[in-house]
Amino acid sequence: MSRVAIVGIGHSKFGKRTDVNVGELAFESIRQAVDDAGVDKKDIDNVVVGSAGGWYEESLPAVVVDEYAGLSSVGAMRVEAACASGSAAVKAACDSIRGGGADVAMAVGLEKMTEVDTMTSIELIGRAGSYMWEFENYGMTFPAYYALYAVAHMDRFGTTEEDMSRVAVKAHHYGAMNPLAQFQKEITLDKALGSQVVSWPLKLYDACPITDGSAAVILASEETAKKLTDTPIWIKGIGYSSDSANLSRRGDYVGLGATVSAAERAYAAAKISPQSVDVATAHDCFTIAEIMAYEDLGFCKKGEGAKMIREGQTELGGKIPVNLDGGLKAKGHPIGATGVSMAVEITKQLRQEAGSRQASIKNGIGLVHNVGGTGHYAYVTVLARE
Amino acid sequence: MSRVAIVGIGHSKFGKRTDVNVGELAFESIRQAVDDAGVDKKDIDNVVVGSAGGWYEESLPAVVVDEYAGLSSVGAMRVEAACASGSAAVKAACDSIRGGGADVAMAVGLEKMTEVDTMTSIELIGRAGSYMWEFENYGMTFPAYYALYAVAHMDRFGTTEEDMSRVAVKAHHYGAMNPLAQFQKEITLDKALGSQVVSWPLKLYDACPITDGSAAVILASEETAKKLTDTPIWIKGIGYSSDSANLSRRGDYVGLGATVSAAERAYAAAKISPQSVDVATAHDCFTIAEIMAYEDLGFCKKGEGAKMIREGQTELGGKIPVNLDGGLKAKGHPIGATGVSMAVEITKQLRQEAGSRQASIKNGIGLVHNVGGTGHYAYVTVLARE
Repeated sequence: MSRVAIVGIGHSKFGKRTDVNVGELAFESIRQAVDDAGVDKKDIDNVVVGSAGGWYEESLPAVVVDEYAGLSSVGAMRVEAACASGSAAVKAACDSIRGGGADVAMAVGLEKMTEVDTMTSIELIGRAGSYMWEFENYGMTFPAYYALYAVAHMDRFGTTEEDMSRVAVKAHHYGAMNPLAQFQKEITLDKALGSQVVSWPLKLYDACPITDGSAAVILASEETAKKLTDTPIWIKGIGYSSDSANLSRRGDYVGLGATVSAAERAYAAAKISPQSVDVATAHDCFTIAEIMAYEDLGFCKKGEGAKMIREGQTELGGKIPVNLDGGLKAKGHPIGATGVSMAVEITKQLRQEAGSRQASIKNGIGLVHNVGGTGHYAYVTVLARE
Repeated sequence: MSRVAIVGIGHSKFGKRTDVNVGELAFESIRQAVDDAGVDKKDIDNVVVGSAGGWYEESLPAVVVDEYAGLSSVGAMRVEAACASGSAAVKAACDSIRGGGADVAMAVGLEKMTEVDTMTSIELIGRAGSYMWEFENYGMTFPAYYALYAVAHMDRFGTTEEDMSRVAVKAHHYGAMNPLAQFQKEITLDKALGSQVVSWPLKLYDACPITDGSAAVILASEETAKKLTDTPIWIKGIGYSSDSANLSRRGDYVGLGATVSAAERAYAAAKISPQSVDVATAHDCFTIAEIMAYEDLGFCKKGEGAKMIREGQTELGGKIPVNLDGGLKAKGHPIGATGVSMAVEITKQLRQEAGSRQASIKNGIGLVHNVGGTGHYAYVTVLARE
């Protein structure tokens, strides 16, 4: 299997972006990625746009993005895997190079969610569950889904509301150090614990926000990557999996089966164990999701996720720092952009360019974990310096 | 570049399918494809769903399709390239095998368009043009776009309304021989010419219908393909390209630049010339589109498309038969399904399984031409027996 590397990265400011339209928002990342890679736009053979869509008027975002960036003749497609659309775009772009059709490809993640009001946004997200059965009949929305996980995890393993709030405090701590994050303010444990209940036991600070944003990575074949940069970040393994959209058909509610199998596939492809990972991003759409991810990714045993956050093992200086960019919780979660944003962050970390948020890199290995729906999709991507 | 073959095909009945939901509609094709390939569902490593979406309630069609087909843990994504979504799905599935992540992959094309009323459908399609400028400000919809092409082609090359009607008569002729087609009735030239004007010079019979349908192809690596079947149909080359969404930015209106460059790339990848193609499907969303496609694909010189239809060169027994399945015009055009449906038809033709619609196969080469938007996207796929 031929090697593919990330050779350029770009990342927009995340937040409520009323100052730009969809094309401009994507270009903010694309321009940085093109400059960072040192490629000419005409050298880009393929563009894959990851976007769930539905929040903005354009029904063909890939066309809009390419046109505004001056990449009209490149050939493109949009990919969607719910909140994992960004990682799916990275996979498709990587495959297009390995498949021999492209030498340089770009994955652009994009969402402009604040173009609709918050209630419409919650409905759009809610429809991503099991639409007919759980959304239409029972009115389930995403906080309610993840509250089921939280209650099950509390019941089975003794995880507490305080443990979940600790994840939020950590996210805001690193978000405050990330100038591109939506929220750049530290919060206290008391503030998180005392915030408004959204769906018990989940409170306001347990949930990620509605966000506009984009991120881009440029990928190249081994030969071209080595010409373009001294610090290629290699895609060592991509694992993907999926699961039932019906929570009623899941085996249990203390983890995501799709994450477990995607991680197994990614570790096998990369020929590494989870213990080799120096730094990771985990899909913390809700704080409980990050705790479950520690376990499902094999960073600790099942049921010990809360212990990891209590002991600070996922902070800077800990055993394996997670979400040093603020995570979905504080950096923001523009759905289609998130997976690409995670790849940008891990590339920065492995290049040792993360400044005050820099993790200690021993094995040169980083991990991206991106979930779609309530575990409908999971993508795990292992990146490495060598 | 490793070789990938189509080893299984499936195709639903096209039409107004009030008898099935989205999952059932997709399964109709998937079941046939799985049976045809002789694979076990557990051997399928990746599923790519091509669907534009917007016409039906489910916002995550890939999850719904996989779940209903018992493929929940397979890992999947949806791809969208407007009306070329089906071909984009075939490309992504092919890439996933060449990329080394999958040995057997399935592309499923799907749309269920009659769940909304016709006017909403026309609006949804109209939004696929240049939304803000041409749709919102000038009220452009797709018949109007293709009428511009028709008028320009008539003016420049002397193409007539009768020439366009001949394309419709041919489509209905073969549609009547295809039990899966939406329209299975022959029409006369007079009936087509005398039908209601939709956007002059385009009349009712110049336009493809609104359709529900699905199609599926199963792809495999060379080693596995040879084990599974004696008649693998190889993917020899895929070319893709794109162009501005703004017609006002196009160079001219007598052809699609994206088709020309996608075809060049596909022919180069397959190492063939257009003269080697035995049988083809062309994207005839409107009759003028098929005439332009003859030229843009290199089946004749620019401006000679009308001559080809007048002389019957694209009928059975002609120089290069096109759309022997009835085309978008008579078979129907369920947006995301169309590209996959075309791959199914060309596979049948190359396997010599098309019955009364069977073309003469000399070189063992067939071609799929699939356009998105008004030429925003174009995918050209060359299939071959060897």
